[in-house]
Amino acid sequence: MSEFRKDPVINRWVIATNDRNFTPEPGSRMPDGIPERDELCPFCPGNEEKTGKEIFRAGAGNSWSIRVIPNNTPYLKVEPSLEKKSEGIYHTISGTGANEVIIESELHNPDLDSMDINHVTEIIKAYRHRMLDLKNDMRIEHVLIFKNRGPYSGSNILHLHSQLMAMPVTPGLIGQEMFFSSEYFSREGSCVYCDMIKHELESGKRVISENKEYLLIAPFASHACFEMMVLPKKHSSGFHNITDKDAFGLAEIMKDAVTRMNRALNNPSYSYVIHSAPLKDNELKHYHWHIEIMPRVKQVAGFELGSGFYINPVNPEEAAEYLKKYDFK
Amino acid sequence: MSEFRKDPVINRWVIATNDRNFTPEPGSRMPDGIPERDELCPFCPGNEEKTGKEIFRAGAGNSWSIRVIPNNTPYLKVEPSLEKKSEGIYHTISGTGANEVIIESELHNPDLDSMDINHVTEIIKAYRHRMLDLKNDMRIEHVLIFKNRGPYSGSNILHLHSQLMAMPVTPGLIGQEMFFSSEYFSREGSCVYCDMIKHELESGKRVISENKEYLLIAPFASHACFEMMVLPKKHSSGFHNITDKDAFGLAEIMKDAVTRMNRALNNPSYSYVIHSAPLKDNELKHYHWHIEIMPRVKQVAGFELGSGFYINPVNPEEAAEYLKKYDFK
Repeated sequence: MSEFRKDPVINRWVIATNDRNFTPEPGSRMPDGIPERDELCPFCPGNEEKTGKEIFRAGAGNSWSIRVIPNNTPYLKVEPSLEKKSEGIYHTISGTGANEVIIESELHNPDLDSMDINHVTEIIKAYRHRMLDLKNDMRIEHVLIFKNRGPYSGSNILHLHSQLMAMPVTPGLIGQEMFFSSEYFSREGSCVYCDMIKHELESGKRVISENKEYLLIAPFASHACFEMMVLPKKHSSGFHNITDKDAFGLAEIMKDAVTRMNRALNNPSYSYVIHSAPLKDNELKHYHWHIEIMPRVKQVAGFELGSGFYINPVNPEEAAEYLKKYDFK
Repeated sequence: MSEFRKDPVINRWVIATNDRNFTPEPGSRMPDGIPERDELCPFCPGNEEKTGKEIFRAGAGNSWSIRVIPNNTPYLKVEPSLEKKSEGIYHTISGTGANEVIIESELHNPDLDSMDINHVTEIIKAYRHRMLDLKNDMRIEHVLIFKNRGPYSGSNILHLHSQLMAMPVTPGLIGQEMFFSSEYFSREGSCVYCDMIKHELESGKRVISENKEYLLIAPFASHACFEMMVLPKKHSSGFHNITDKDAFGLAEIMKDAVTRMNRALNNPSYSYVIHSAPLKDNELKHYHWHIEIMPRVKQVAGFELGSGFYINPVNPEEAAEYLKKYDFK
């Protein structure tokens, strides 16, 4: 039985259904047998000189565990000054910003699920470090950190990495979340995400996992199948404000999420995106940072992109039930 | 050189760039040598009894040129009464509505580009007919008509068809367009789409084609590469209000658009979506129906779906220039 569900933040309707015939599309899986090292991989040790000038490194001397480098075909460049232009009703801003790659392991094959928890914590801290550094550039409004992994995610490099785009505008969905969560706050006097966390903990039926600091749920109005959302239990609008202790807790929950997903869906393509308030906004009462994790196990239909109307063949409560089974603890 | 461009209606920022290395991904093409008839195709003549009860037919007796049938795995059903439920901050509406398939040819292989213009006109009229019929159902708020064609569009049936979803809610992007165009009207005293048409006709640099009634452009803030938009030159918010003469003009411009796209991009996967005001709204001053045509020549990156922030590797002015060359007249 299908139903329409409204996203409690951005008011977007999706169809949630339960297609018993649904299976991940075969082309969406990560390949088997990825080696520990690939001489041709630009992110593997030994090829450091082939990348642009290193921005950040975790690990001492020649050995490293995480590197941040500039994207070699960047969409955004730091150099040009910020310029605004108009053409009739149209508005343009120059491509001023930064586009960086966070190489998340010295080895070619691991995903977060096989990594030591301290290593995952270092990855989280590297994200934070880059955001805090870019916050100093007054031209930068927003830093978007995301991961695309596997053939259906739009990434063709197997070596685990994330990307960062620092830009003078706020991405569409985050702008919508900011707008509607502010409206909710005016109306209800509370943060919509805090209310969501409270409701999810009480109901329990979409909770996949949790620790002291974080909650992992299947969102009520998921637009992708087996979508997951990580929410900090303590209200905060800026990811870059996490403490070291928070970073460890987040590493735990991210490792947990990726492990469940890889086991349950047999190493699917996936993406995750950190949704955080614009950098210049210090802690906002109405916004709450979070991470959206989307397994990419089916093609997005063209009409979904063209209408903003999504059909999710897997009911979020059943997705949560299924993902809950794959516990590695 | 990259730049940020703001959609003049929904205020969504995209990156427009010009990636000289960009080529359509090979898996995105329609297969070659599709036969005129496929006995296994549920939409080919001879298999009429395998589909659900026919809703509409164009053509006399046993021969037909267009058929409308129910989707055999419908997400929405006409029978259940419209029910609303709440669970804390969450809202649900029952999956009440209709999900129909418009089979657009008796032959298995043609696309709009090889069809007689009168046949294409009949397809347009079939869309209108279904919208007007469903308008009588008071539970239906919106009828979304769209086409998904080819492996990257999410459709696995090669026989040319469109789909219709009649539903009690407005799809996300159309809701945003309604909201922001209304705001623009209050502020500027004019329809943002009418202003866009005026500007595009004056500037000319994104105009691909036009006839007396319609304009075909590469939208200024296209989120997909080689995206096209069909706009009626005369203001109207409801697609279902087109006259027979308009239908002929629209058939001309749709055939023109698909012909250019198929020649220029070598028969890519594509989708189109009719954006029209909710059915119950009679002609609105602030909204303007239009059709978005999106060739699907590259995977949508996961982060684009998860952030609502799109990177378009093909600059719309160059896309227009390129598509303009492929004239069939």
